[in-house]
Amino acid sequence: MKKNMIVGQSGGPTAVINGSLYGVVLEAFEHDDMIGQIYGMLNGIEGLLNRQFLKLSALHGSKELDLLKTTPGSYLGSCRYRLPEDLSDPVYPQIFEIFDSMQIGYFLYIGGNDSMDTVSKLSRYAQTIESDICFLGLPKTIDNDLVLTDHTPGFASAAKYVATTVREISMDAAVYHNTQSVTIIEIMGRHAGWLAAASALARKNKTDNPVLIYLPEVSFNEEDFLDKIRTLLPANPNLVVCISEGIHDCDGVFLCEKDQTIGTDNFGHKMLTGSGKYLENLVRERLGIKVRSVELNVAQRCSSICLSLTDLNEAIASGQFGVRAILDGATGKMVTFCRTSSAPYTLTCSLEDVSRICNQEKTIPLEWIIKDDTDVSDAFLRYLSPLIQGEVTVPMHDGLPVFASTAELPDDCFLR
Amino acid sequence: MKKNMIVGQSGGPTAVINGSLYGVVLEAFEHDDMIGQIYGMLNGIEGLLNRQFLKLSALHGSKELDLLKTTPGSYLGSCRYRLPEDLSDPVYPQIFEIFDSMQIGYFLYIGGNDSMDTVSKLSRYAQTIESDICFLGLPKTIDNDLVLTDHTPGFASAAKYVATTVREISMDAAVYHNTQSVTIIEIMGRHAGWLAAASALARKNKTDNPVLIYLPEVSFNEEDFLDKIRTLLPANPNLVVCISEGIHDCDGVFLCEKDQTIGTDNFGHKMLTGSGKYLENLVRERLGIKVRSVELNVAQRCSSICLSLTDLNEAIASGQFGVRAILDGATGKMVTFCRTSSAPYTLTCSLEDVSRICNQEKTIPLEWIIKDDTDVSDAFLRYLSPLIQGEVTVPMHDGLPVFASTAELPDDCFLR
Repeated sequence: MKKNMIVGQSGGPTAVINGSLYGVVLEAFEHDDMIGQIYGMLNGIEGLLNRQFLKLSALHGSKELDLLKTTPGSYLGSCRYRLPEDLSDPVYPQIFEIFDSMQIGYFLYIGGNDSMDTVSKLSRYAQTIESDICFLGLPKTIDNDLVLTDHTPGFASAAKYVATTVREISMDAAVYHNTQSVTIIEIMGRHAGWLAAASALARKNKTDNPVLIYLPEVSFNEEDFLDKIRTLLPANPNLVVCISEGIHDCDGVFLCEKDQTIGTDNFGHKMLTGSGKYLENLVRERLGIKVRSVELNVAQRCSSICLSLTDLNEAIASGQFGVRAILDGATGKMVTFCRTSSAPYTLTCSLEDVSRICNQEKTIPLEWIIKDDTDVSDAFLRYLSPLIQGEVTVPMHDGLPVFASTAELPDDCFLR
Repeated sequence: MKKNMIVGQSGGPTAVINGSLYGVVLEAFEHDDMIGQIYGMLNGIEGLLNRQFLKLSALHGSKELDLLKTTPGSYLGSCRYRLPEDLSDPVYPQIFEIFDSMQIGYFLYIGGNDSMDTVSKLSRYAQTIESDICFLGLPKTIDNDLVLTDHTPGFASAAKYVATTVREISMDAAVYHNTQSVTIIEIMGRHAGWLAAASALARKNKTDNPVLIYLPEVSFNEEDFLDKIRTLLPANPNLVVCISEGIHDCDGVFLCEKDQTIGTDNFGHKMLTGSGKYLENLVRERLGIKVRSVELNVAQRCSSICLSLTDLNEAIASGQFGVRAILDGATGKMVTFCRTSSAPYTLTCSLEDVSRICNQEKTIPLEWIIKDDTDVSDAFLRYLSPLIQGEVTVPMHDGLPVFASTAELPDDCFLR
């Protein structure tokens, strides 16, 4: 008997989160013997609870579907809704009632750690009520912090953006050869420094900028930092320093907490801003030299102009693999990447228990952090380099990129 | 008799400042009957005074020369050195002694207002001593604030970067449909709002984000701003506001001066940071809604991935035209752009007295600022749109852009 499929996106977007969605939809169209309707939840679980859906089947053969591949943001909308820990909470029967009313057999959720928590809870609840609905997670995060997978879709395009932009800013920083200056570039990454570490690829030669890279895997010492700048400036008059937003002192206090009022998000994460600004002020006050800070900010996760072709292809492949796996009966799993060889780079998709992945964080192995905790090793670069290979041409109109948007679909594409 | 040519770059870089240099070198090679050596000043006038030169003739037919076109930053290095107002200052005979010792006949300087001031002073001093050296300015500024020219090379690529990035950030900002949020994007532009106004191109439809655009040509009122946000949020739950860094109140006080200690640069300009951050705090405190600010920062002027082909071609053409003009005896002039038609867009190069250009600022005509000073008119969009047309493919290696760099040239390319 045919069942319907539902897919959602959750958490912060990446440049290829819609690539994963494209892969799901493309593969689902191939299995119309098993799948009836393909629904998209608008704004993840929140949209599900509010019964707001997009009929993705309506996109069959459309130009809109093709545009999805290179569209930033979450096409279906996102949420940061956390399901209750207690599986006896009334929200669970409420959700499964909606599944039943829509004849859902397959549930796919594209997201990071928190979204995998949703997949884990729904699949565990399904077991308790002996539901035969299958639940599968598709990885997505620029932070690359999911365990049991070689890397995550979205990371490589963000890494390519970081390396490209740091290389460009380093060119910009070097124009006043005769004036000493420090440029501090703040890169996303709360507890895992993968993206900040990617700035090492910006170097053409070993001694190029960024000369210093600071990661949240190790603790940061302000006096050591100032000493290093003093020592390095004579040979590197235009010094570029890349830092992860989440760098912290040996007591675990984030730099950005040291002079700011901060809040917490719905998941209890502290909201970070301003480690770069904090260090800018420190360098200015203590060393009295020209200094500026640049926060790469959201462009890291939404830039379509630096898409990695490898990343996009892998995101699509993860979506396709996920659909085949769930039709085969996989549930409570997440699609993972296994690197079978680094040179030449080859990869296969696999499955791991989602409950072993959610609420875990994979940080950079300490043996890859070198030079007194201010750089990353060649082994890290060999790991990262294959992932950023290849460029993607984004469709352009009138000098600007063209993106897909649900806002432009006719009303009958929606169920709400 | 053959004379030598010298060329320099000054002020902040743009994405096509090296395109202008490429045009100069390319055209100069065509006139080896009149031009002997082609020298580059390393770091503008400062390098000239320190006798630090690059023999640009050595780049003839090299891959390096070709890479120049798409290389960000100032290939020759830059400076912010201001020549004394008093033409009887001893620095002038010192400079002309260097010119004589190097048999310079032609001096070209690529820069903005301040650099045109240098061209003006040198050409006026030359008159006083009856020197036959010719001095010509080539325009360059992302700010588009030079008078007597339709626009300036560098503006359009920065505008394309701004429009693209604001479109992408707007996609990112819209993912949590169910939560009201304000995103404030701070764009470069101290007194002229051309770049911030370019964010209007990010819209696909008239009502798209950015819903509000604030420019420094008019004064900014905080209460009006908060009222507009309150009024607009119900229909636009994820509001994007673009502001120019130089917005100020009716007394001319910059927003960023309101809660910060600030310094001044060598030209006496106040150094601005943080108008976006200031408004972010204002919105959070007064309206209590989710708000973030994004400073587009230096990537606006150094991004090679958003180059406008039109801009690059015009930069190259301005360099070529400049060389032909100076060989014809032009001096004390700047190359300008005259738009001969908007649809189809056609442009010719011309010359204007540099003394009428330096130390002036062209701002957006007030009739182009509409909707209670929160938007720009269709006339502005018709002016801007032709300039951002066409894309440039940047040479890539191993997934990253390849740039030219004097650091990699052999020692015998330099004279110092």
